[in-house]
Amino acid sequence: MLGSWLHCGLPTGGVLNITSLSMFLNSKTDAPNFLIEVIQSSPTTMVLILDVPPRKDLILHPEYLKTFYEDTKLDVQRQKISKLTEVTPYVSHSLYIRSVVSPTAILVNVKCEDGGAERIEEIVSEYIYPVAIDVMRIWMDASELEGRDVVDEERLILERRDEVVKNKTIEIDLGSSLPRLFGQEIADKVLAAIKDVFNGKNQSESTGNE
Amino acid sequence: MLGSWLHCGLPTGGVLNITSLSMFLNSKTDAPNFLIEVIQSSPTTMVLILDVPPRKDLILHPEYLKTFYEDTKLDVQRQKISKLTEVTPYVSHSLYIRSVVSPTAILVNVKCEDGGAERIEEIVSEYIYPVAIDVMRIWMDASELEGRDVVDEERLILERRDEVVKNKTIEIDLGSSLPRLFGQEIADKVLAAIKDVFNGKNQSESTGNE
Repeated sequence: MLGSWLHCGLPTGGVLNITSLSMFLNSKTDAPNFLIEVIQSSPTTMVLILDVPPRKDLILHPEYLKTFYEDTKLDVQRQKISKLTEVTPYVSHSLYIRSVVSPTAILVNVKCEDGGAERIEEIVSEYIYPVAIDVMRIWMDASELEGRDVVDEERLILERRDEVVKNKTIEIDLGSSLPRLFGQEIADKVLAAIKDVFNGKNQSESTGNE
Repeated sequence: MLGSWLHCGLPTGGVLNITSLSMFLNSKTDAPNFLIEVIQSSPTTMVLILDVPPRKDLILHPEYLKTFYEDTKLDVQRQKISKLTEVTPYVSHSLYIRSVVSPTAILVNVKCEDGGAERIEEIVSEYIYPVAIDVMRIWMDASELEGRDVVDEERLILERRDEVVKNKTIEIDLGSSLPRLFGQEIADKVLAAIKDVFNGKNQSESTGNE
């Protein structure tokens, strides 16, 4: 589990808040990971990223797409958010981030020019909060699915893919924002510590390294 | 190469035109495929799908993402279309179609309520036509890249993935539209003929079957 809370004054006088939580499962299961990120740079706008990113190539594994995305009706959750008039799609600059998310990912800009900060609070409590809870519940149910034992040859590919995802995600996400916000020296220290945990030992063994 | 031109009167009095061209490369190269589809159900609206869908899992193969999508600056082409005020993102109902396209895919609705049919002609000639030509040129250059020999173990995965893509694409795309437009009997005949070509022999050998 990787959580980060960034808070930073901007040269423009505003404040940037980025809250992010990623949950990576180990290779005893092939169930998707969980990801939520909220980026707020003004009281009336926000970016929301909410997804259960797949851990297999969905094209080579149509049954994976069916089990975790079609049968769970995750797209209904996406539609609840995207139908709002204040919401437009968020397109990441990074082609990697665009590729790593699922076909039901919620990647949106919320802009409340009229209703202001009050309306954005309303959208969070009435739409984003319940959808985030539902997506997390669907993810937890899916990650406990029985009969999804990963066989040895699949586990190797899964572990290789997981490793790329973890390293790339840090590199692109935190690796671009941390140096900008806190300088290269602090960023390097934080990133090195996270990479140690990800690449060194598994979760239970590595607690002492953090 | 699979091209189709569907033209059909609608119960509402309108006319539906679907033009689609897919080009699938063989396993001597791992370069992306090419796909363009135009769906027009009224003189002032259209759906455009234009992409070079990847033939490998982009997460497991970051160098593939770099070579064919980042280095080719394909996203610049996408931006030329998506910046237009008449354009909104097109989200396919099929999660499979959403997964099979690349992170630089152009998937858009064009709606010209004000300018009408004239404005849509203008968008086609000034934006869509040059972008389609550029994407095709980038694809042709990329598909001729030297030094991309596919080794035997990779070829097996590539061929398996290609097979899934071809069959799923027909099943979801033509398999849903043909029966609706021309009845089940004609649809079954056409689909069976295409599947024969795809699954039977390779391109040069199968010409006699078509």
